[in-house]
Amino acid sequence: MLANGRKSRTMKPLVRRVTIIGMGLIGGSLGLALKRRHVAREVVGVARSTATLRVARQRGAMDWGTRSLARAVRGTDLVVLAIPPAMILPLVKRLLPHLSSRTMLTDVASVKQPIVQSLERLLRGRAPRQRVHFIGAHPVAGSEARGISAATADLFQDSLCILTPTARTDQQARAMVRRLWQNVGARVIELSPRTHDRWLAAVSHVPHLVAAALVNAAASVPLSHAPRSFRDVTRIAQSDPRLWQDILLMNRRDVLVALTTVRQQLTRLWAALQRRDARALLRALAQAQRRRRQLS
Amino acid sequence: MLANGRKSRTMKPLVRRVTIIGMGLIGGSLGLALKRRHVAREVVGVARSTATLRVARQRGAMDWGTRSLARAVRGTDLVVLAIPPAMILPLVKRLLPHLSSRTMLTDVASVKQPIVQSLERLLRGRAPRQRVHFIGAHPVAGSEARGISAATADLFQDSLCILTPTARTDQQARAMVRRLWQNVGARVIELSPRTHDRWLAAVSHVPHLVAAALVNAAASVPLSHAPRSFRDVTRIAQSDPRLWQDILLMNRRDVLVALTTVRQQLTRLWAALQRRDARALLRALAQAQRRRRQLS
Repeated sequence: MLANGRKSRTMKPLVRRVTIIGMGLIGGSLGLALKRRHVAREVVGVARSTATLRVARQRGAMDWGTRSLARAVRGTDLVVLAIPPAMILPLVKRLLPHLSSRTMLTDVASVKQPIVQSLERLLRGRAPRQRVHFIGAHPVAGSEARGISAATADLFQDSLCILTPTARTDQQARAMVRRLWQNVGARVIELSPRTHDRWLAAVSHVPHLVAAALVNAAASVPLSHAPRSFRDVTRIAQSDPRLWQDILLMNRRDVLVALTTVRQQLTRLWAALQRRDARALLRALAQAQRRRRQLS
Repeated sequence: MLANGRKSRTMKPLVRRVTIIGMGLIGGSLGLALKRRHVAREVVGVARSTATLRVARQRGAMDWGTRSLARAVRGTDLVVLAIPPAMILPLVKRLLPHLSSRTMLTDVASVKQPIVQSLERLLRGRAPRQRVHFIGAHPVAGSEARGISAATADLFQDSLCILTPTARTDQQARAMVRRLWQNVGARVIELSPRTHDRWLAAVSHVPHLVAAALVNAAASVPLSHAPRSFRDVTRIAQSDPRLWQDILLMNRRDVLVALTTVRQQLTRLWAALQRRDARALLRALAQAQRRRRQLS
């Protein structure tokens, strides 16, 4: 096993051919990192627009690209689905006839349970000799930026990547995808799809909703007067609305639960302020400070 | 009038002696900037602890310091109150007997209406010949950092400083304090104390409460798994709880109104998600994106 990206330069690549479907911020950055760190011998990119493919090629994020799924996955070892979460199941259905046996399949979506469940159900239908092996992954490294032009080779350096294996997960695919992300600099952990979605609802999906609510609630204030802190708090409100609409709907149950908890906290703070309860306010603020300080 | 800090090097200082009461992040940074840019000939610092005074002196944030208010303000031209908002009125009461006529007084508090009102009421009591001239100011440049050790000479460079003059404001003090902040790099605007507090509730005070609520609501998630976006959104939850308790209570009415608006937004988002209303979700997210993009 390769310990890190640097060592891989002098060693045999981890994987022969990787096909990345979707050359946006995540797909493009993965391609750049795989090439730069010699993790894959060959990176093939798929995008819907030839302009994206041209830029991805120029930037060195892939060896060659195509708009044809069939061509892109022919003879490949690993397919990485770097497309919006709602597009994954329909795309895999189109892809499946073209995948050879023992092809490994992974994704990068921010929501896991519906994707892992639906793909495992779909893939179980195949005859054992034609089996394709899927493991869910979530590189926690996106930003409000988008597209191949925002991609960087070090996007995953010191980032977190969450794998979501299940009882059905093929052990070889699990080990391969783990090493792939480690080799581009990520710290890899494993969670069940269920735990992943519950946790990410609280630390990612609901904060996106809250950032949007803060921006929309401040509609009467000229934002040129907003302090730096407001920019920090609301930066993620710039994220792609369609992508986040999908994520929120796909993780609907967990987001509703986590959002209810936040709304309860705000109701409690509102009530404390309403009754001029300085101690209750201080307690809540001090608890948040203590907890937040555990993070850098 | 000095156009900016650079020119001031070759020109006469704007003011002879400035006394800064409170050598924390804001007071210390102001002292450093006034000295570095030769805006004041002499900067006198006041702090409660001799350790703070020693560091402020070593770092060049003042020419000399003292724990004695009487000594610090003797013969000074401008007193800057860089202390927590709840301490301002009691301190000015203690300070008043030591201030000579025509001394100018300003502050740096994040909440203005109660401070401006109470100080104007207090100062009106003085005989005309002993009059002290106050104008409220809010350099919008704080951070979750605290203390003289976090102070920097360029904290106010390209920042915003809001002056809150009233019908009672002395025009000379207003012009002087405006130039002072311009000379340390700030863009100065004027708002009524009322408008200031209403706007800051929406873009600063409520976001602090919301950041605390998000951290406290995520209590069951190991924060080491939180994405960078969560760190950005909740960074201000590290701010000093006592300072923010004061700000929230002093701006209680406006914070309650702004917090109600945010809670309504969240209730609407919750309901849209609950009834799987993709279009309503998209509309809210797209509106926030559009608006937030107006900021850098």
